[in-house]
Amino acid sequence: MTAPLTAPELRDIEDAAVRIRPFAHRTPVFTCGAINRRVDAQLFFKCENFQKVGAFKFRGACNAVMSLSEEAARAGVATHSSGNHAAALALAARLRHTTAHIVMPDNAPAVKRAAVEGYGGRIRFCQPTLAAREATLAEVVAETGATVVHPYNDPRVIAGQGTAALELLEDVADLDVILAPVGGGGLLSGTAIATKGLSPRTRVIAAEPAGADDARRSLAEGRIVPSVNPRTIADGLLTSLGDLTFPIIQQHVEAIVAVSEEAIVAAMRLIWERMKIVVEPSAAVPLGALVEGALDVSGRRVGVILSGGNVDLNNLPWAIRASS
Amino acid sequence: MTAPLTAPELRDIEDAAVRIRPFAHRTPVFTCGAINRRVDAQLFFKCENFQKVGAFKFRGACNAVMSLSEEAARAGVATHSSGNHAAALALAARLRHTTAHIVMPDNAPAVKRAAVEGYGGRIRFCQPTLAAREATLAEVVAETGATVVHPYNDPRVIAGQGTAALELLEDVADLDVILAPVGGGGLLSGTAIATKGLSPRTRVIAAEPAGADDARRSLAEGRIVPSVNPRTIADGLLTSLGDLTFPIIQQHVEAIVAVSEEAIVAAMRLIWERMKIVVEPSAAVPLGALVEGALDVSGRRVGVILSGGNVDLNNLPWAIRASS
Repeated sequence: MTAPLTAPELRDIEDAAVRIRPFAHRTPVFTCGAINRRVDAQLFFKCENFQKVGAFKFRGACNAVMSLSEEAARAGVATHSSGNHAAALALAARLRHTTAHIVMPDNAPAVKRAAVEGYGGRIRFCQPTLAAREATLAEVVAETGATVVHPYNDPRVIAGQGTAALELLEDVADLDVILAPVGGGGLLSGTAIATKGLSPRTRVIAAEPAGADDARRSLAEGRIVPSVNPRTIADGLLTSLGDLTFPIIQQHVEAIVAVSEEAIVAAMRLIWERMKIVVEPSAAVPLGALVEGALDVSGRRVGVILSGGNVDLNNLPWAIRASS
Repeated sequence: MTAPLTAPELRDIEDAAVRIRPFAHRTPVFTCGAINRRVDAQLFFKCENFQKVGAFKFRGACNAVMSLSEEAARAGVATHSSGNHAAALALAARLRHTTAHIVMPDNAPAVKRAAVEGYGGRIRFCQPTLAAREATLAEVVAETGATVVHPYNDPRVIAGQGTAALELLEDVADLDVILAPVGGGGLLSGTAIATKGLSPRTRVIAAEPAGADDARRSLAEGRIVPSVNPRTIADGLLTSLGDLTFPIIQQHVEAIVAVSEEAIVAAMRLIWERMKIVVEPSAAVPLGALVEGALDVSGRRVGVILSGGNVDLNNLPWAIRASS
């Protein structure tokens, strides 16, 4: 990493908001009477499924790429990822008129390759092991001089992700609680810094699949518990916390609640059916916590970050459940 | 029918807009760069999938119910329908603190019954023939004195449906074309009156499934050609035109284009994947016409009414196609 690993502050998030404004969508905040009645609270959904590339990830990637010096930008950016971050980095690089080098395992689904290539990313395939990914990424950097942009353990990325909560807090007054999903912790730590900076009384709570509850255990044990063999449909939340995101979460996040797979699917379906929007399983995890009763927010005003909307429409969880 | 069957004018649509404002959503207008590039035009989607009950139908039902005198309202309203109009009328009646009597064939899907009951509608089942529906509706009216609200061949309903285009024209300047789907013609005729009243130069064009192209043939032949054995996934567009809607369409609608089933499904999927919103097949028919090249709007500013978002998530067309 070339950037110093110090936690961003509210000011960095405000700077990021200005920096990405010409490129990112200011996404709308949706409400839904039927869901409010179901959970007995007022929910305000920040619709990052409508963000560029279909996920909040574009905010962080865009902030990182647009922060680079002219000289650094010319050499491009690089990451190893096959998910939303890869697509987001590819688009951000294109908008900066430079190149994103994406290291991806050679067994990555065709749809993910196509997304990265569609945004002009240059893919370098490697064997599907962490060692191979890291070695290949190091090769790419040695060859090109590209700047590595980590999916979450990077202060520019965290600051970018925090702009979603910043906008939500600007648009909706007096939130009692903000809920976000947690994987590597980039969205959650950015959300926490924005929220505690702008509205200290607002509680920040995270939700995590019970089958990938390493962040919840990390908070309980006071150390980063690695994510080992996570089992969840919420494929955006499989990774371990980073050494930059974890202390921010320790400092600002009140609780991390675990959510069952059944509740994630039920919440996802509720959002599709009642709000008429497409969200990915990871985005449904916070509502899953409310649907399941793992978290009680009765009578409260609650912001919910809907993290993204990239799903395989041929492979929806209720269809899988019905046929299994 | 108790209301006089004269076509509404722009003023009636403006009155309807005021009348339904406390009850209906002013739905947003979405744009999508990827879809614009695909069809080489600027599309402005009026998102009636976000309307109450998930479809534009609430506008017409609400305007009809809120137009009733106090005395008439006390006796309730009635219709025979099992689709979005039934749910819309049930909700509108509830908001007027009265009763909607819904005549429904006894083989109607459970999900449609549940929707009507969920909004407090009182269902009267009958045999699944048109004769039985009409006889049962007459019985209900004789017993209760309820006012019949036809799904489309009613000036109050047409005026209500026209408020969607009214809002779209208020929100987006200089539209060259407005596209709407056509079934019974309530949405299309309301759209046409609003558009020609507010922006005479804007062309009004309708899209219809090729497997249910009775409106296209009606326009060609100069008489109402009944819809016989329609075959299409767009289940909101199965009915024949009415004697009130047809003349309005003849007067104001420039063309009705037929769209293949493949194009309807492709357009629906495009909307889900790129716009991240849930729309029903009927709503995708106008975009289907563009995707298929049945209609060329290159370089134009085009309003598209997305009529609704009520779909059975267990039964999506691409899943059906994949397994057949």
